Amino acid sequence: MKIVRVNMTNLSVKTEEVPQKWANLGGRALTSAIVAQEVDPVCHPLGKKNKLVFAPGILSGTAAPNSGRMSVGAKSPLTGGIKESNSGGSAAQKLARLGIKALIIEGLPEQGKYYSLHLSKDEAKLQEETDLVGKGNYEVIDTLSRRHGKNIGVITIGQAGEYKMLAANISIKDYHGYIRSAGRGGLGAVMASKGLKYITLDDTGTPPVPIAEPEKFRQAAKTFAQALKEHPVTGQGLPTYGTNVLVNIINEAGGLPTQNFRRGRFAGANKISGETMYEYITTRKGKPTHNCHAGCVISCSQVYNDESGNFVTAGFEYETIWGFGAVCCVDDLDIIAQADRICDDIGIDTIETAVAIATAMEGGVLPFGDGQKMLAILEEIKKGTYLGRIIGCGASVTGKVFGVSRVAVVKDQAIPAYDPRAVKGQGVTYATTPMGADHTAGYAVTSNILNVGGHVGPLAKEGNIELSKNLQIATAGIDSAGLCVFVAFSMLDKPEAMDAVNQLLEAISGKEFTYDHMLGLGRFVLKTEIDFNRAAGLTEVSDRLPEFFEEEIPPHNTTWDFTPDELQQVFADLKEEVKSPPAEVWMAPEDEPRTRPTVELH
Amino acid sequence: MKIVRVNMTNLSVKTEEVPQKWANLGGRALTSAIVAQEVDPVCHPLGKKNKLVFAPGILSGTAAPNSGRMSVGAKSPLTGGIKESNSGGSAAQKLARLGIKALIIEGLPEQGKYYSLHLSKDEAKLQEETDLVGKGNYEVIDTLSRRHGKNIGVITIGQAGEYKMLAANISIKDYHGYIRSAGRGGLGAVMASKGLKYITLDDTGTPPVPIAEPEKFRQAAKTFAQALKEHPVTGQGLPTYGTNVLVNIINEAGGLPTQNFRRGRFAGANKISGETMYEYITTRKGKPTHNCHAGCVISCSQVYNDESGNFVTAGFEYETIWGFGAVCCVDDLDIIAQADRICDDIGIDTIETAVAIATAMEGGVLPFGDGQKMLAILEEIKKGTYLGRIIGCGASVTGKVFGVSRVAVVKDQAIPAYDPRAVKGQGVTYATTPMGADHTAGYAVTSNILNVGGHVGPLAKEGNIELSKNLQIATAGIDSAGLCVFVAFSMLDKPEAMDAVNQLLEAISGKEFTYDHMLGLGRFVLKTEIDFNRAAGLTEVSDRLPEFFEEEIPPHNTTWDFTPDELQQVFADLKEEVKSPPAEVWMAPEDEPRTRPTVELH
Repeated sequence: MKIVRVNMTNLSVKTEEVPQKWANLGGRALTSAIVAQEVDPVCHPLGKKNKLVFAPGILSGTAAPNSGRMSVGAKSPLTGGIKESNSGGSAAQKLARLGIKALIIEGLPEQGKYYSLHLSKDEAKLQEETDLVGKGNYEVIDTLSRRHGKNIGVITIGQAGEYKMLAANISIKDYHGYIRSAGRGGLGAVMASKGLKYITLDDTGTPPVPIAEPEKFRQAAKTFAQALKEHPVTGQGLPTYGTNVLVNIINEAGGLPTQNFRRGRFAGANKISGETMYEYITTRKGKPTHNCHAGCVISCSQVYNDESGNFVTAGFEYETIWGFGAVCCVDDLDIIAQADRICDDIGIDTIETAVAIATAMEGGVLPFGDGQKMLAILEEIKKGTYLGRIIGCGASVTGKVFGVSRVAVVKDQAIPAYDPRAVKGQGVTYATTPMGADHTAGYAVTSNILNVGGHVGPLAKEGNIELSKNLQIATAGIDSAGLCVFVAFSMLDKPEAMDAVNQLLEAISGKEFTYDHMLGLGRFVLKTEIDFNRAAGLTEVSDRLPEFFEEEIPPHNTTWDFTPDELQQVFADLKEEVKSPPAEVWMAPEDEPRTRPTVELH
Repeated sequence: MKIVRVNMTNLSVKTEEVPQKWANLGGRALTSAIVAQEVDPVCHPLGKKNKLVFAPGILSGTAAPNSGRMSVGAKSPLTGGIKESNSGGSAAQKLARLGIKALIIEGLPEQGKYYSLHLSKDEAKLQEETDLVGKGNYEVIDTLSRRHGKNIGVITIGQAGEYKMLAANISIKDYHGYIRSAGRGGLGAVMASKGLKYITLDDTGTPPVPIAEPEKFRQAAKTFAQALKEHPVTGQGLPTYGTNVLVNIINEAGGLPTQNFRRGRFAGANKISGETMYEYITTRKGKPTHNCHAGCVISCSQVYNDESGNFVTAGFEYETIWGFGAVCCVDDLDIIAQADRICDDIGIDTIETAVAIATAMEGGVLPFGDGQKMLAILEEIKKGTYLGRIIGCGASVTGKVFGVSRVAVVKDQAIPAYDPRAVKGQGVTYATTPMGADHTAGYAVTSNILNVGGHVGPLAKEGNIELSKNLQIATAGIDSAGLCVFVAFSMLDKPEAMDAVNQLLEAISGKEFTYDHMLGLGRFVLKTEIDFNRAAGLTEVSDRLPEFFEEEIPPHNTTWDFTPDELQQVFADLKEEVKSPPAEVWMAPEDEPRTRPTVELH
């Protein structure tokens, strides 16, 4: 496997051997290691010193179930800290099959110019792009699918990225042509700053990803798939209702942030729930169950049509539905689906954008509950009007511009769909993850609400520091393996699932891999990220929730009551320890040079 | 002397004894001490936990020359750190004569309601205000002057404050009815968040400020006035050309930041210079020389009329003229005067606003040099349009919204009118002062360019760390005394001026006060502020200039080349030392209770 390095200043593409210390790594571990090593932590995120790194997971491109996640890393223009955002779609698998362990985009091109990068077995080609500049993601993907065939992999930015909005995401074509997103932290603005409109990935004719012990790998994959199918969450809940199964569950738990985090229950919850969505989808001949990458056995995605049966959106997630729904007090699922479609098309994070709109509602820009005006604002983002620019820069900037102090962010990143006062393990994750408020970084909803991996009460502090910490470490490992975070449901409840993942990692590398290695990998990732953030100027003060969470939230009337000292316990040991190179934790075998894109200079 | 505490939550006004530890303090020392003691460093600057503190200088209200500065302190919504912004005008003298050592505004009123505070010898009255809400500062001051007489003191916010813009300032009526500003750090937004539209100060019938040794005080005041008049800068340059004497000087020195800090010389410099301005003023029957408070013997202010001889603006400063001039490439002094007038009226910092507009020019919102469009944007700020809201939040937010990475800020506050690559002592001040980029915090232009207080080369690093450090310490003392920072020219060059200031402080208190006491006071202030900032989450990373200052600046083609370690030397000893209470440095005598505003509850 190789590293492909694209320098946008001199428009060169080079391939490099993978240094030994990174040989084991993939996904988040690799993007964070590269960013930490190569990016000046105090640089301007949109300047020449930042780098954008794409890395398929360690297991990506193989037959391991749900291993199709690609990590994208950089210094975040939103949080000012390190960012890893991962996504499904076909890009991880294609990158891995092209033998690309990491793709590093660096430098800055001549201002205003855009380029495309085409990667195939035989070439790595950087070309100036003009036709698709200014176009939305759907048009980009449709055009490129026509140009290169339906199987082409696409990584692209929409208009939000081109405007360098802080909420701009990076969009990934899934293998049906729908859109998945590396959503958080404004990485689309970084890609735009590099002058890269899109990347096409053609894996035609590539050899399979090398596996040291193929038979062991095959057995483990089978066991793992079985365990995923047998778990009620990954085998029934998610396939049927998608992640939106959570609206009714979290609303019932009193943790569904409503009207800019004033209440934990939304009167319109049932109208936007997974159950209602399933009914709409089935009535309108959509698809309730759909997977974003080959080999996914959960299939939490879906195809959502309008009343006339026309396609509106896919990958219609709980977070999006909560965001444009409960937090903005909009209870019309079709309006929310429109919002999701627009966000996918312009390439902007739905969580950040929804909370920014709720912040604008707080500031009197539009009334809570006004779904039509909400859609109009999304169109303004697409056009890059002044209001669109404000909202497109996320909740923190929106709060500043409109003089609002009730702004739900941590490290300037919007807080997602679980109120930290009513789902306290989630709150600990929001406060302490180096990513800024991020639900996936340590998804304590598992034990707090779903009773997966045991039960830790969601309303009191007890046990939630430890819960979040353990989940954050495990998640950093899972994100590095390239596994979808939802595999954790099964791994937490079923020892055979946990064993199977370790077996998969052992079989691909031919080196011992145990649960301890997984934890070592997770700790390495977090240590790397925390150190970067500290060097970037983020302190313990950044590890806090906004002041207004001191207010009680109905119905449980709990408050956010963790002290800063308690929160600092989460990673106290990590912060103090000397970083052990992951090579000492888990050495991967040297692999043979495979695909070697030619060097091209333009 | 008393502390007056206004609680906007329950609308109460209370007077309190001055605690012994604060008995010596005034001005910046007192605002910073109170903010550090009473404000949670991690609070939201526009939330209920922030406090806004007004304090006249130690010498304010006496006959000491140039002692009419009032400090305003709070946690800054712009920088996120502690802020002291001081201003001339009549407020400091009136507060001091009313026996008010500090006025503390705390709590938050019912949302959307505005109040006025009237302070006189006999009462302290908080009243709901509706008529003047939404009005500009000129109308507020005119209305209140008609209502209370021309001698009334006024502290007010304009529309920018009401919009809670991060660049909103607090405006102070001078004794002619013109406007001075506590300009930097967005304190107008804090005043707005407290629901306070304006404060009126009626010092009718108040006794003189008590002086322990009146004859010694009189002699020292006389010596000091003489020394100020004899110095070429304070006796000739500033009275004739105002601070705008600097345009030609700094342009000549190659340090006049032009076109968003691309060059150090502006082709249109002569058209906006102090010499040109003097010619316009004298031709148009304005006043080239004018003082902002009684007892000022420098009189750097002026009255600037338009071609028809109608008043446009007063207190037309170099920084403003540079800002709306060179950095935006506008070379029309009348347009710049209009810009100054609008900013005074809406109550917004001219430095922050001008650099924000230059940032918008960088982002393509308007062309460099387009003065008419610049004025149109200022009108948009007044109206609170979306573009107006963006620009009104300063350069950092403007940069984020328009995806610009060339943004001249430190701690999110705009860099003023001396390029740090060509006036390196100034650069050290920008980087290290706890205030965010602030030219007055340690005005190294003195030794770098004007050869006042010796000479330190402006283009090389040598001596500039020490220069900035010493100036920052001395300035913190001068800001606490309530003296205008321009007295430093004379104090640096004339031992008798330095002695006179010490004598004034000794005479008012009846306690020994030497140069060492002045340094002790300055060190106490800086230590207090640095500690607050650290607790607020600002680190050494905040003590840096933006990345683009690595570029060479013509004509000298120097770069910003201080390392972070070098910059940390500035306050290394202060950061490590245990804070000594100022009472141990300089104990003021207990003074008798004087004016005691009645407690009123509404």
